[in-house]
Amino acid sequence: MGETIRFGVSLDTSLLEKFDKLCEERCYKTRSEAIRDLIRKELVQMEWEDHNQEVTGTLTMVYNHHQSDLAQQMTEIQHQALDLVITSLHVHIDEHNCMEVLVLRGPARDVRSIAERLTATRGVKHGKLSLSTTGKGIS
Amino acid sequence: MGETIRFGVSLDTSLLEKFDKLCEERCYKTRSEAIRDLIRKELVQMEWEDHNQEVTGTLTMVYNHHQSDLAQQMTEIQHQALDLVITSLHVHIDEHNCMEVLVLRGPARDVRSIAERLTATRGVKHGKLSLSTTGKGIS
Amino acid sequence: MGETIRFGVSLDTSLLEKFDKLCEERCYKTRSEAIRDLIRKELVQMEWEDHNQEVTGTLTMVYNHHQSDLAQQMTEIQHQALDLVITSLHVHIDEHNCMEVLVLRGPARDVRSIAERLTATRGVKHGKLSLSTTGKGIS
Amino acid sequence: MGETIRFGVSLDTSLLEKFDKLCEERCYKTRSEAIRDLIRKELVQMEWEDHNQEVTGTLTMVYNHHQSDLAQQMTEIQHQALDLVITSLHVHIDEHNCMEVLVLRGPARDVRSIAERLTATRGVKHGKLSLSTTGKGIS
Repeated sequence: MGETIRFGVSLDTSLLEKFDKLCEERCYKTRSEAIRDLIRKELVQMEWEDHNQEVTGTLTMVYNHHQSDLAQQMTEIQHQALDLVITSLHVHIDEHNCMEVLVLRGPARDVRSIAERLTATRGVKHGKLSLSTTGKGIS
Repeated sequence: MGETIRFGVSLDTSLLEKFDKLCEERCYKTRSEAIRDLIRKELVQMEWEDHNQEVTGTLTMVYNHHQSDLAQQMTEIQHQALDLVITSLHVHIDEHNCMEVLVLRGPARDVRSIAERLTATRGVKHGKLSLSTTGKGIS
Repeated sequence: MGETIRFGVSLDTSLLEKFDKLCEERCYKTRSEAIRDLIRKELVQMEWEDHNQEVTGTLTMVYNHHQSDLAQQMTEIQHQALDLVITSLHVHIDEHNCMEVLVLRGPARDVRSIAERLTATRGVKHGKLSLSTTGKGIS
Repeated sequence: MGETIRFGVSLDTSLLEKFDKLCEERCYKTRSEAIRDLIRKELVQMEWEDHNQEVTGTLTMVYNHHQSDLAQQMTEIQHQALDLVITSLHVHIDEHNCMEVLVLRGPARDVRSIAERLTATRGVKHGKLSLSTTGKGIS
């Protein structure tokens, strides 16, 4: 974690009141933690703007498991990018719908690309890539 | 503006270094100003989640001015919602393309609705609503 | 799945060329599949604008596992919302960083709320809620 | 505009019903127009992912006009980037708050950069860049 540094922040009372309300609604225990989260959110967005930066992400897909060949096609695409896919999780939503969540890691450009390819597979109703981080340097 | 209050924020050195780099890149003169901006950005997002909250916004549309009747249709829609449209700005982009920017103000739900309706008009190539604020209570 | 219906869409050649290039880059096998995906993406966004709509989502969190008590706190919050958390997945990113992915399901408002609460926990560096769907009615 | 081409799209009845409802809510006169808009929205997003692509955008800023020197600072920044700023529009929101909307044009990277710099100016409560297009090749 390294050393902790403390510095002062100035806010007008009316802005501070609104910020304190936000902290309360989201169950932040301290203002510092809320501010750290706002900073880290901004930093993670910047990581993804650099196409070569190593990132992590999760791809959430909902699909109809009656679609023939779909599972096999998705497996094939994943095997062509073994270095990007860390693991996957499967959830049965109802009689027709399944969810598959893949944890991805690699250069931002490659993670986006495999997510787009999987989402484009016929039978995948919805695919959404969530942009996360390896957490390196973001303490 | 009201009274200004100062409080302490704790960050690990590695997070602080990244934050200071962000401040420098975006030309923030003080850490306080950067943190105020992060807080205000979050507050404005929350305003828009409340469908009844009074907000402001700008709608940026790009369209082909050769499209017959388009200007007239857009004017008609705007006149049916006079209380929402404060003003508009027109820019000639090239021989074919025009940009029109509308400044909107009203309940979040109504502002979204007129923006969707204008964007749906045939001939409008791209319409994008930018979510802003009246600035009230956000000092 | 139900019956399939076919209807015609008109595009200018220049827009069609750009669309075909997009389909190729994202490995869509047919234009129909790409268009279905664009429609479904829009529908899922609309589901989340209705706070009471039943949705699914995944919350991706990156945290430092050296943070004492963190795992316990996160477990407690999840147990207070057992009906919202379907399952979770854990990945070791490096010596310091872990990723935890939760699959959530419930009214949009409640899913957002628990995601915000978990993200606010001290030690969670980054939390990102990915908005998905139960897939119902979205064939 | 060029020639218009017509091709067939297949949808399941349940997806088509939802799509038709979306078209009605947003006042689309034809399915074709709604589909063209979905395609163009995706294309504009892709333009902005290419940092060198020429784009247009609008920057909406809300600020307190009592803040001394603010107008002058903003003018100076704009004059250092004359080639990016096409025009601007000013709206008085209330006794304290003003809105300024800038129409920007240039490489995506440069447009983002000046928008960040202006937003970072002390006294600007909220700045939001709306990503648009020159409309070239998007008919």
